[in-house]
Amino acid sequence: MDKKPLVSIVMGSDSDLEIMNEAAKSLESFDVPYEIDICSAHRSPARTSAFSREAAARGVKVIIAGAGGAAHLAGVIAAETTLPVIAVPIAATPLGGLDALLAMVQMPAGIPVATVAIGKPGATNAGILATQILATSDAALAQKLAAYKEKLASGVEAKSKKLQESRK
Amino acid sequence: MDKKPLVSIVMGSDSDLEIMNEAAKSLESFDVPYEIDICSAHRSPARTSAFSREAAARGVKVIIAGAGGAAHLAGVIAAETTLPVIAVPIAATPLGGLDALLAMVQMPAGIPVATVAIGKPGATNAGILATQILATSDAALAQKLAAYKEKLASGVEAKSKKLQESRK
Amino acid sequence: MDKKPLVSIVMGSDSDLEIMNEAAKSLESFDVPYEIDICSAHRSPARTSAFSREAAARGVKVIIAGAGGAAHLAGVIAAETTLPVIAVPIAATPLGGLDALLAMVQMPAGIPVATVAIGKPGATNAGILATQILATSDAALAQKLAAYKEKLASGVEAKSKKLQESRK
Amino acid sequence: MDKKPLVSIVMGSDSDLEIMNEAAKSLESFDVPYEIDICSAHRSPARTSAFSREAAARGVKVIIAGAGGAAHLAGVIAAETTLPVIAVPIAATPLGGLDALLAMVQMPAGIPVATVAIGKPGATNAGILATQILATSDAALAQKLAAYKEKLASGVEAKSKKLQESRK
Amino acid sequence: MDKKPLVSIVMGSDSDLEIMNEAAKSLESFDVPYEIDICSAHRSPARTSAFSREAAARGVKVIIAGAGGAAHLAGVIAAETTLPVIAVPIAATPLGGLDALLAMVQMPAGIPVATVAIGKPGATNAGILATQILATSDAALAQKLAAYKEKLASGVEAKSKKLQESRK
Amino acid sequence: MDKKPLVSIVMGSDSDLEIMNEAAKSLESFDVPYEIDICSAHRSPARTSAFSREAAARGVKVIIAGAGGAAHLAGVIAAETTLPVIAVPIAATPLGGLDALLAMVQMPAGIPVATVAIGKPGATNAGILATQILATSDAALAQKLAAYKEKLASGVEAKSKKLQESRK
Amino acid sequence: MDKKPLVSIVMGSDSDLEIMNEAAKSLESFDVPYEIDICSAHRSPARTSAFSREAAARGVKVIIAGAGGAAHLAGVIAAETTLPVIAVPIAATPLGGLDALLAMVQMPAGIPVATVAIGKPGATNAGILATQILATSDAALAQKLAAYKEKLASGVEAKSKKLQESRK
Amino acid sequence: MDKKPLVSIVMGSDSDLEIMNEAAKSLESFDVPYEIDICSAHRSPARTSAFSREAAARGVKVIIAGAGGAAHLAGVIAAETTLPVIAVPIAATPLGGLDALLAMVQMPAGIPVATVAIGKPGATNAGILATQILATSDAALAQKLAAYKEKLASGVEAKSKKLQESRK
Repeated sequence: MDKKPLVSIVMGSDSDLEIMNEAAKSLESFDVPYEIDICSAHRSPARTSAFSREAAARGVKVIIAGAGGAAHLAGVIAAETTLPVIAVPIAATPLGGLDALLAMVQMPAGIPVATVAIGKPGATNAGILATQILATSDAALAQKLAAYKEKLASGVEAKSKKLQESRK
Repeated sequence: MDKKPLVSIVMGSDSDLEIMNEAAKSLESFDVPYEIDICSAHRSPARTSAFSREAAARGVKVIIAGAGGAAHLAGVIAAETTLPVIAVPIAATPLGGLDALLAMVQMPAGIPVATVAIGKPGATNAGILATQILATSDAALAQKLAAYKEKLASGVEAKSKKLQESRK
Repeated sequence: MDKKPLVSIVMGSDSDLEIMNEAAKSLESFDVPYEIDICSAHRSPARTSAFSREAAARGVKVIIAGAGGAAHLAGVIAAETTLPVIAVPIAATPLGGLDALLAMVQMPAGIPVATVAIGKPGATNAGILATQILATSDAALAQKLAAYKEKLASGVEAKSKKLQESRK
Repeated sequence: MDKKPLVSIVMGSDSDLEIMNEAAKSLESFDVPYEIDICSAHRSPARTSAFSREAAARGVKVIIAGAGGAAHLAGVIAAETTLPVIAVPIAATPLGGLDALLAMVQMPAGIPVATVAIGKPGATNAGILATQILATSDAALAQKLAAYKEKLASGVEAKSKKLQESRK
Repeated sequence: MDKKPLVSIVMGSDSDLEIMNEAAKSLESFDVPYEIDICSAHRSPARTSAFSREAAARGVKVIIAGAGGAAHLAGVIAAETTLPVIAVPIAATPLGGLDALLAMVQMPAGIPVATVAIGKPGATNAGILATQILATSDAALAQKLAAYKEKLASGVEAKSKKLQESRK
Repeated sequence: MDKKPLVSIVMGSDSDLEIMNEAAKSLESFDVPYEIDICSAHRSPARTSAFSREAAARGVKVIIAGAGGAAHLAGVIAAETTLPVIAVPIAATPLGGLDALLAMVQMPAGIPVATVAIGKPGATNAGILATQILATSDAALAQKLAAYKEKLASGVEAKSKKLQESRK
Repeated sequence: MDKKPLVSIVMGSDSDLEIMNEAAKSLESFDVPYEIDICSAHRSPARTSAFSREAAARGVKVIIAGAGGAAHLAGVIAAETTLPVIAVPIAATPLGGLDALLAMVQMPAGIPVATVAIGKPGATNAGILATQILATSDAALAQKLAAYKEKLASGVEAKSKKLQESRK
Repeated sequence: MDKKPLVSIVMGSDSDLEIMNEAAKSLESFDVPYEIDICSAHRSPARTSAFSREAAARGVKVIIAGAGGAAHLAGVIAAETTLPVIAVPIAATPLGGLDALLAMVQMPAGIPVATVAIGKPGATNAGILATQILATSDAALAQKLAAYKEKLASGVEAKSKKLQESRK
């Protein structure tokens, strides 16, 4: 990953790494340069604050934050940057991620956080959403996204064909 | 609103207009040109599909979709565009918007939707998030966002001062 | 399956196949001709739209749609057909299917979706409900349903007898 | 209403009448003959049982049942008829209809109930769904439903036009 | 079990037997004669109705009903008897028993159902509650219940002592 | 109220009185002697404990306890008596009584509490359930309950007749 | 309020003032010196961070933080102080405070937040809890708390007496 | 553990021991003397009441109570002591601890309970919160807490470094 990262993936704990790697894979599939790091709103507030205030100046364009439970990471970052912040709620407690979802999505007027689905599908989508954001000013990326969309559709057709053949 | 719209605000029903106007106000405060329209995933699917497929070509960069209940509008639009789609869940049923929130945020891997808070704070934030997305390639907008952030902070200080004075 | 299908079972992903096969089994037990296919509201919208608009003309009388998460499939199909659409919510996320249930059942006035239980019992019941719908104009099917109802009742009696004997 | 009813609307209590009248209005708009009555699963079980067992013989094709709280009416009727039963959950307790929804939709395998949205939109949709069921064997009704769908779409366009004009 | 049963335990399906056996064990520990049977509100309504109407005449004093999902069994029995009916919600679906709990406890005014906890603790308690009800007119049973209460308290003390010793 | 009370209605706060009066009315309609008092698990634990330990000796046969929020009253009383305790959850917080319901119904094995519906219907039913419990050893009361059941059924028929006449 | 504050009450917005004043009243009733201020985790992060880091040095012993929605204030403060932080969830959205409750209480291991009830009862209790904490090293305060507890109990007795007299 | 305990950890059942041991470990890491015991609100009310009334006189400064289901232990203790009581909700039922959380946190005005997260993270935090409370009058403890906070932050940095190295 030599190029300067355009997207920064951060998570509250290394136990979230397996899930947040889906965001990384998603960005890699579009050749979007990214960084990935651990940064806790609660255990390392100064580090998180510094990260948030400096990200834009380092050239980062979009931040993806994953956290579980009382998931404050995305909101805390959004409080200190004007970059778009994407939140991935993680099901890390017996409440199935409903706690993380509500703690992320219900932000007050003034400080938006772009929340996606709980867990791996959400992490994958965070990577795609970041790419869509970058693509608003990058026609080549927009074409890659269009190609990806076609691949999704043809994937459905392939699975359909396979299902029909299995039933003959 | 003479300039070509960069953001398109759509909603499922005119009963959502009062809430979605907060997104409009928010965009206006940043001088971001926008359009606002009604477009139901369920009552006018062809219209919604045409809108979704053509938005990018018309120069729209970000779509904001508000809906309540089994809120499919944002997901249905996201299925047919590669633009970032922001979803505003609306509390239109006795379940307090939990239905709209889950119907929007829990999108499957491949088709992200950027969900914000239920109701007016969410609509306001949808406008700011759209502006943040545009600002990833527009330094002037980024400065406006930074100024807005400072205004939020000084607003808190003003309210604090007022509270302290009222207690003397 | 030579006869022209009267019921069409569709699902958003092949990961839903094990559950949706219960609907197929249910239809087979009443000798109702059916088709089964994959058709995603989000990954293949054009395919889903074409399917929805053409189903009635192909002789399909009832559509059964299974999906999880932000389950839009049933609603999106219902938007483009006047056939009755039965929705099977699938527990595909950590929220136990509550997301899919609310995303299916809370449809706005004008576009009904007939929602059944989450998961396998719901898929089985979707097959029976489709048969009940067809039986409103097919006396032979109605008789099969009456026989099935008697079998359910005698099944309870058989289990009761077995339980009493095991306790002697 | 001289014609023999094809649809029977029943509800647990006269306090549900305002909501269930939406189902009646919906059926009237399609000229579907119906009856409407009160019939409690808990307060008048014998009456409900007799109603359920005799409905088909009286020529009824579809039953719509509305109830709140521990809403058993639809399931209890479905236990004694092979007709399709549509359930309308009513928000009659401080839990906002979630109790009625779950008490209706989570039926066990063998006895389906077709659940629609909570409250008035659900009642309206129950009437349309009943019409869709009858239309599976009535081409004239199917045409009325197609016309209704077009009216929904043109209604959205009219509202859109009005909104655009108000913004000039 | 030669004596005429004073308590009748019924359940919707033999898959509930493992849980409902806890109610039986509980009654056995107080030497309360009981019967246990399968009786579905949905699959065998006539059988359930006959059971409900005849239980009192057979000498049954209390009915315990266990069911999952859209758990109607307790309410349907309560509709046809004036005996106290105890409801045990069973976690038989991905919603963790919340569906069964709400479908049982939220009965309308006029037809009470005495709901206990979800699953095995609830089944155990159903047996104790039935015993408490019988003990309102049976002083010997009341004494057994008092002895049981003392055993519960001394059980806590024994566990406390064991814990303290393990920590020395 | 000269006769010695057989049922004791207690509540955590006088703000619950309007709801718990429904239990009183219900008992009055069956001529069951009762007492009604305020007794907080949290604000007056000694009083509640004394009440619980002495109720049986005073001739009380059934206790009805109403409370909202973290509703401990019923469980705390059940811990110190072997009488049946009926719990009425009250919707006293923004969570609509779900908190009180779960805090009452989810009792651990060993100490049952008979929970009824949230609010007024639950209070009414608590009175009826207490009467059903007393009627297990009082044939005259059982007959009154049977008459009440018939009145419920004829009430439904009267409302049905009125509805049909209003539609002529 | 001349004395140096031992307790600091902060809230995210002046719209929370009416509720958080209950905490102030509660502290006043125990003569505990306090300060009250506005301090948003999201709108004024620097101010909140400075407040959190400096509170202990100013002599503050306990912090009470009230917030609604994605309520991060308490957690964000707890991240930067070793003082005990009490969280008051406020019902500021259509979800009735469940969002604020989960966003506050589900903190990760390492950074506790002491959460109390939603809304006014919680704010009152936050004041009492702060007093209890101070009383662990202040015998006079502990005596005031004991007196308060007696007043709670005698208040119940007074209400009981009034109720009995009203029924004579 | 020779020193007189300053913190008392109690739990409703020995099945909660694995979770509540996390509170013990947490206190040990700060060298805070504690005791740990079993004490059920429901099975041993007299024991619990005696414990609650006598804890302060024995020198205990803070009580930690863990319980699941209708978790009354913390509230019942708080009713009889003026010491701060910390509540740890335990996920002991199919409802994932939501029942225990609401049964603990929603205490009425007058009797606070300091609720922490569900399960092990909550138990760990209960130990830290108790330490924070003691540290309000113990400067040495406050320093240990500050050191712990630094360790949390440096732990994040260590994990970050490890992650970056693994990606080279």
